[in-house]
Amino acid sequence: MRDFSGDIQWLSINTATVRKQWTLDQIIEGCARRGIRAISPWRDQVAAIGLDTTARLLKETGVGLSGYCRGGFFPASTAQGLRDALDDNRRAIDEAKTLNAPCTVLVVGALPGALAGKAEYKDISLARSQVQDGIAATMDYAREVGMPLAIEPLHPMQAADRACVNTMEQALDLCDAIDPARTGMLGVAVDAYHVWWDPKLASQIARAGGKRLLAWHVCDWLTPTRDLLSDRGMMGDGVIELRKIRGWMEDAGYAGFAEVEIFSEQDWWLRPGDEVLDTCMARHRSCV
Amino acid sequence: MRDFSGDIQWLSINTATVRKQWTLDQIIEGCARRGIRAISPWRDQVAAIGLDTTARLLKETGVGLSGYCRGGFFPASTAQGLRDALDDNRRAIDEAKTLNAPCTVLVVGALPGALAGKAEYKDISLARSQVQDGIAATMDYAREVGMPLAIEPLHPMQAADRACVNTMEQALDLCDAIDPARTGMLGVAVDAYHVWWDPKLASQIARAGGKRLLAWHVCDWLTPTRDLLSDRGMMGDGVIELRKIRGWMEDAGYAGFAEVEIFSEQDWWLRPGDEVLDTCMARHRSCV
Repeated sequence: MRDFSGDIQWLSINTATVRKQWTLDQIIEGCARRGIRAISPWRDQVAAIGLDTTARLLKETGVGLSGYCRGGFFPASTAQGLRDALDDNRRAIDEAKTLNAPCTVLVVGALPGALAGKAEYKDISLARSQVQDGIAATMDYAREVGMPLAIEPLHPMQAADRACVNTMEQALDLCDAIDPARTGMLGVAVDAYHVWWDPKLASQIARAGGKRLLAWHVCDWLTPTRDLLSDRGMMGDGVIELRKIRGWMEDAGYAGFAEVEIFSEQDWWLRPGDEVLDTCMARHRSCV
Repeated sequence: MRDFSGDIQWLSINTATVRKQWTLDQIIEGCARRGIRAISPWRDQVAAIGLDTTARLLKETGVGLSGYCRGGFFPASTAQGLRDALDDNRRAIDEAKTLNAPCTVLVVGALPGALAGKAEYKDISLARSQVQDGIAATMDYAREVGMPLAIEPLHPMQAADRACVNTMEQALDLCDAIDPARTGMLGVAVDAYHVWWDPKLASQIARAGGKRLLAWHVCDWLTPTRDLLSDRGMMGDGVIELRKIRGWMEDAGYAGFAEVEIFSEQDWWLRPGDEVLDTCMARHRSCV
């Protein structure tokens, strides 16, 4: 298992972590200044400063990507909605390609309309089948342009509105079905926050294997957790055994970044961006 | 599949549903007055009016139990803590026996101390092994007095602080390990709120079989959900396909009550108890 205690060469910052404090150009600059080698940007943050500007700043600073956030949200209640989702996923892949992302993360979506407060249908198995069809269709394009897709199982508390893929086992079943040859073009993004509770986590990480473990996201589960979306903790402040899980990842062959992704309405999003990044660096060494 | 649309003979009220409005004697009276045949009381509500008084009121009104809430909370960070938990579970079983409960529900516990805000350890696999040992020890006593135990898998968002058994599959693996002969003394309590998201739900309900399906709890998952514990919805107000899941339960052999359990700090706990029970009756017929 790699020793992270001495440096931050495997630290990546998911740009949502400081989205309230900084624009993407400020984030890239703040990371470059600290020797943080990678980020994982969100599409809206890229759009805010422009794709070309983002590409240029990455090139100038030498900061790379550990992933691109995000494609997905496949389910819809109309045929037009399903087509629109596929078009949008193509655009996400094109952007990821422009920015040299190693993978595009898929938050697959769930019951259409639920995120806005009113589900257009309640049949979660239908949503799951639309997700499978959507990933399969998107894979055709991803393969063409050479952009691996990483299915991110989200915590079951987000099964209604954000992602109806909620366990590693379920995500890997999808990988087996859509990419049985294991071409390397379809895998999973393992976010500790979403999967730490799973009694089958160790065995499913082993099942995935290094070739399908495309990303590793870290933060912590707080007790109490006051919000279903944006009360994530800094690594070390909660109950997740991050180092143990990273051990399972590395035993399976993962050798990439540990990407810090913290949504924190009441704490970290209120602090100065410099303080947040400095804390990420310290905790990367001591807790990840 | 049974038709619930015409009457409420299979409706039970978990007493937490009106815990803020009424004491247990008022709840029993309110149910009896409406022809609701069963309740599932919580220990603290029983203690508040006395065990003997509760037993007498149930006898006088003819209201029965669909379960008793609850035993469990087995994990601890000290040997004394582990012993105390076993003693407390014996007392819960004795009370359930006095009240003629068909089963005692187990909310198994999780990381000790986490519910109070500070986990005494973070090793969730240790907590899970303490849970298995605790259930096994408690089973010896439960078998002696003839009180079935129902393991309730809780939603993964409560894995840190309330229950580290979080899927039907995991609960049934425990049943297989502790009661391989399937004596009928160990099974599961299926709460739609906790398990609706599970992609393996249908297959695990079938695996359980009627003899191990000891309870069926209903409410609904709201979008958005504003709190991890107490923002449950009334049946029909959320996204859970209650009738479909009840179909799976009945196909597997379940023929008992549908027990309404709603924790709702911002809505149903603020309404008059009569309105809540009347709504439960109406929704039982139209949505369960």
